[in-house]
Order: sequence, then C-alpha cells, then structure tokens
Amino acid sequence: MKLIVLTGIPGSGSTTILNKTLEMVDYTHLNYGDIMTEIAIEEKIVEDRDELRKLSPDTQKVIQKKAARRIKQKSESANVIVDTHCTISTPSGFLPGLPAWVLEELQPDIFILVEANPDEIIYRRLSDETRTRDVERVKDINLHQEMNRAASMAYATLTGATVKIIENHDNHLDHTVSKMVDLLK
Amino acid sequence: MKLIVLTGIPGSGSTTILNKTLEMVDYTHLNYGDIMTEIAIEEKIVEDRDELRKLSPDTQKVIQKKAARRIKQKSESANVIVDTHCTISTPSGFLPGLPAWVLEELQPDIFILVEANPDEIIYRRLSDETRTRDVERVKDINLHQEMNRAASMAYATLTGATVKIIENHDNHLDHTVSKMVDLLK
Amino acid sequence: MKLIVLTGIPGSGSTTILNKTLEMVDYTHLNYGDIMTEIAIEEKIVEDRDELRKLSPDTQKVIQKKAARRIKQKSESANVIVDTHCTISTPSGFLPGLPAWVLEELQPDIFILVEANPDEIIYRRLSDETRTRDVERVKDINLHQEMNRAASMAYATLTGATVKIIENHDNHLDHTVSKMVDLLK
Repeated sequence: MKLIVLTGIPGSGSTTILNKTLEMVDYTHLNYGDIMTEIAIEEKIVEDRDELRKLSPDTQKVIQKKAARRIKQKSESANVIVDTHCTISTPSGFLPGLPAWVLEELQPDIFILVEANPDEIIYRRLSDETRTRDVERVKDINLHQEMNRAASMAYATLTGATVKIIENHDNHLDHTVSKMVDLLK
Repeated sequence: MKLIVLTGIPGSGSTTILNKTLEMVDYTHLNYGDIMTEIAIEEKIVEDRDELRKLSPDTQKVIQKKAARRIKQKSESANVIVDTHCTISTPSGFLPGLPAWVLEELQPDIFILVEANPDEIIYRRLSDETRTRDVERVKDINLHQEMNRAASMAYATLTGATVKIIENHDNHLDHTVSKMVDLLK
Repeated sequence: MKLIVLTGIPGSGSTTILNKTLEMVDYTHLNYGDIMTEIAIEEKIVEDRDELRKLSPDTQKVIQKKAARRIKQKSESANVIVDTHCTISTPSGFLPGLPAWVLEELQPDIFILVEANPDEIIYRRLSDETRTRDVERVKDINLHQEMNRAASMAYATLTGATVKIIENHDNHLDHTVSKMVDLLK
C-alpha cells in the first residue's frame, strides 16, 4: 500500500490532474483540510471548516497531528493520495504545510509537486472565477515554487520519501496524467 | 507575544532596517552573538567575544543552546526580535546559524530573510568602511541567498514557523521598513 | 579527526577529484554502498551488492543505519571521506541519500557537493562508456543540482555540518583538487 502526498500552488492545476488520475487508478483520495475539519467536528471543537482557521495555533497543531495519524491508518488498508499544500503563502511568509510533527505520523512514500510556468499559472488563476486570488507576479510565483522545492527536500530528509516534480503544461493534460498514473502504480 | 528571527547576508542592509523598525514597534532587540557572549562570560568560560570563536565546537554548541533558551524565556514577557545569521559563509562552506538543537529551544514565529540584488549588496559592502569583507562575486552572493532560502525552509519544517522574504532595495528604505512594521504587528 | 561526505551527480567528476585528492591527503576513503554491502553479507542477508537493492525498504533502512554507525566508528581513529549520493534521481523522484536516521549516526563535519555546468556534465556522461546512463536534459541536470543544494541544507540543519560547493570545470582539475586538499586539511 502506498501513501502519496500531492501538492501544487494555486493555478498549478493539481486538482484537475488529481481528478483525471483518480479515474484510472485504485486510490482513496483524501483532502488534508477535510480530515482536520472532520476531527475537529467529532471532538466538538468547531461546527464547520471556517472556524478551524480561528483556532489557536496550538489547537490547530493537535488537530493537524491527529489528521496525519488518521490518514496514515487509512493508508494501511488502501492506497491513499492526500492533497494538501507544500507551503502556504501567508502575509507572514511561507508556512510549511507538512511540519515535522505531521511528517512523523504521516511517513508518506512520495511527495509530488505539480508545477507549471508562471505565465501558465497566472492565466489559469485569471480564468478561475470561483476563487478570488491575490494577484502575484512572475517572480512571486517562481519564489513560491522554489520555496516548495526546498521545503519538500526537508520533508524528504525527515521521512526518507522521494520528491517527484510533475510538470503540468497547457495542452499536455493527457501526457501529465499518464505520468501520474505510472508514478502511482 | 512574538519571537522573530531576522537574518540577512552582509550588505543586505538588515541592520539598517532593524534599527529603523525598532523606532516604530514595541519589540526587545537581542543579538544572538551578544547573548552567547553574555552566557560564556557569566559561566567564566571566556572574558570577551573574540574568545568565543576559539572554543571547541562542542562547547560552542552548549552555549548556543543556552542562548536559545534565554532568548525564548525573554520572549515570554515581551515581543522579541533576534538578529543572527541564516547561514554563515565560512572557508569550510555554509554553516547553518540555526541548527536543530537551537530551533528546538527557540521555536520562533517567523524567520525573516532580508534580501537585495547582488549588485546592491556589492556596492553596500564597498561603501562600508567599518568592515573588511571578502570580495564576493555576483554568483557567490546569489548562491548564498539561495542556500539561505533552502536552510530557512528546513528551519520552518522543524518548527512550523513561517519564512518571510523582505526585499531591501536602494532608495526604498521607508517602504521596506513599513513592510517590516506590518509584519511585526 | 574529520568526517567528510562527498557527493556529486553522475558526470560531475566527483570520483576523479576524489582519486586525485586521496594521493595528497591522509584520509581513509569509504564508499557508502560498499559498507552497506559488507554489513549485509556479514549478516548473511545478501550474497552480493546487486541483491541489496531488492531488499525491502525497511531492511535497507536498518542496513543503512548500521553502515552510518560503522563509518562513524572508523572516523574516530582516522580522517574519513565517504562518497555517496546527496539525492538519487529515481523514477519515483529524488530520494535523499542521507535521511535523518543516517545523519543521526553519521554526524559529519562537512558535506561537499561537487558541481559542474550542465553542458560539461552531458559531455562527460557521453564520453563515459563504462556506464549506460539515462539521457538528461540541461533543465533536468539543473533541477537535480538545485534539489541537492536544498537537501544538503536540510542535512546541515540536522547535524550542524557545513555545506561546501566545489565547482569542477573542464581543464581546471588541478585547481579543483587543490581546493579539495585545502578543505580537507
């Protein structure tokens, strides 16, 4: 059984690839934030996902750790792909999505970084009317992808997992998905 | 209460920004090397800062850890900004300024990397007559800043802190300081 | 006594530099894979090196850790330089050569990354008829070297070791070797 972590910055197209890939492989898909919300509701800490962000960092940390444990358990009886953020770009800087206390529980096999060119990412963000996203310049996008690469190697050092970069360029969706399928086999 | 770590390679202008920022925020400023010296003098290991460098790596490590603990304690009753090096460029290579045993004690909220363009850094170093600095080429400066970014994401992975890059370009000091002030709020 | 870890991607020329350097310094040279093989044969787990790769990841991990311990022991009575991979480029992505459980035992003084320009690396790989190597493009080589830099700073953060990048350009072998000799003194 495999446990895969899938990440990609907004506009990288990681969700599109994930959905197409799930049609072709026998994997259970989990979303890290959903699992955290599920746990926090069960423990009667919050009533919905929005309240999660308002919790103290310490409480969030506890829930984040429990979510990692739950995902790990599910991966013992099924192949699991969990989507989350490698780092989140916040006003206070890049926040690691998989800090040491999460990795300790999660122990995944592969970290996937879905990447695209900054211009592709900018166009995709502009076309996505379902979200309002901060306008980022080419250099901001390059920086975010660079910091994700660095973070992923720190994650790999702590866990022994591999880091796979999947390029997701315009008009190559089938090619990208077939790479994902090969990787998940 | 917040604990912020401020870093920047020589010529990045991190000290200038720090001094301007301290005029506008309620933060206690600590220098990592000063705290180490203070502890080593208290424990009668050295008589001044110069002797610190001559100590064995193991002794330095113990003092470094105690300094982290002292800084952490001070941050419990006041907002603290500590300036230190992300990595130090030595003849033996890049030495991490915040190795795991320091981070374990320090647990800061934000790592700030003050960056500038290599040409700005070279000019600033040339103009600074108070220090004799090794002449570094553009590629050396780019490399040092790249390694600091990578190191900072490893620090963030171990602690859960964010990494904020603040660009400090010529003739934009007020703008840069106002960004720092926003971040420290 | 010093313990140095030497790494470089295929075609970087790290082996050539190592052999020339060993003529001029008093260091014991160990190869990480050889030590792992030695241990696995002693423990009657395998009969030769090829079988090593076929072992389960968990068994490999145990042997990898024991190899780190043996190398560390040897470095207590002699200067040791161990050559291994910073990261290995596998179909599943970049695999860290020195994960946390290895670093914990190894605690080296310096990580050396031998680097060269992508075009130099491509030519050297083409000229090396002893190995069949996958053809990689310039961007793949740049990516691998970038990921190695990030990984090495994670290794440095966990151990406190320095990271030294040694550039190994065509027609500069003597110069490169003299830099290595200085570093190992």
